[in-house]
Amino acid sequence: MEKINLKEKYALFNEHWSPKVIGALNGQQVKIAKVKGAFVWHQHEKEDELFMVIKGKLQLEFRDRIEEINENEIFIVPKGVEHKPVAEEETWIMMFEPATTLNTGNVQSAQTRVELERI
Amino acid sequence: MEKINLKEKYALFNEHWSPKVIGALNGQQVKIAKVKGAFVWHQHEKEDELFMVIKGKLQLEFRDRIEEINENEIFIVPKGVEHKPVAEEETWIMMFEPATTLNTGNVQSAQTRVELERI
Repeated sequence: MEKINLKEKYALFNEHWSPKVIGALNGQQVKIAKVKGAFVWHQHEKEDELFMVIKGKLQLEFRDRIEEINENEIFIVPKGVEHKPVAEEETWIMMFEPATTLNTGNVQSAQTRVELERI
Repeated sequence: MEKINLKEKYALFNEHWSPKVIGALNGQQVKIAKVKGAFVWHQHEKEDELFMVIKGKLQLEFRDRIEEINENEIFIVPKGVEHKPVAEEETWIMMFEPATTLNTGNVQSAQTRVELERI
């Protein structure tokens, strides 16, 4: 049981699109990532995925529209919905999702991260 | 599927210790509350509970210590651990927890809220 300070956690790494686990509860994980540029199109067959923007701006592309998520905004992507996260400038995001969730979902890509570091 | 803006959601209500549901995913709920003063001592038998402070300062009293959670800080209270949230000034918190979680856990109190409003 210890306090999690987001700024301290983000200070521990610099790489983009490499989620770190900062907490776990009820079979879910809290993850953070620094992102910049485009991520791969993917969907999660069984997991809904929550994105919260802590700093910056996240674009979530869907097949029929684009959503722009700003600081202190949240977006929940339901399972089965294809999405492509994009950030023009470096953006800090937090995710809340089942521990089983793979970052690239149904797609194997150079951006896939299987073993996530716990920080 | 729609964007959730935290400030817009907090603007929708003023009462204290009355959690509102702002999102749901994977059997979990995202809740927000404005809190001020002392909440009742309680524990959740089966649910871990995540608190994040969006604005202000939340004191989490445990039987052996007190933790002070500031803005952009998170604390996960494991199931079975008695805790008492306290806020000297009005504080805005966000919670992630299973949809089954009752705000006062094992305790029936005037602060118990069974039917939560979805906003």
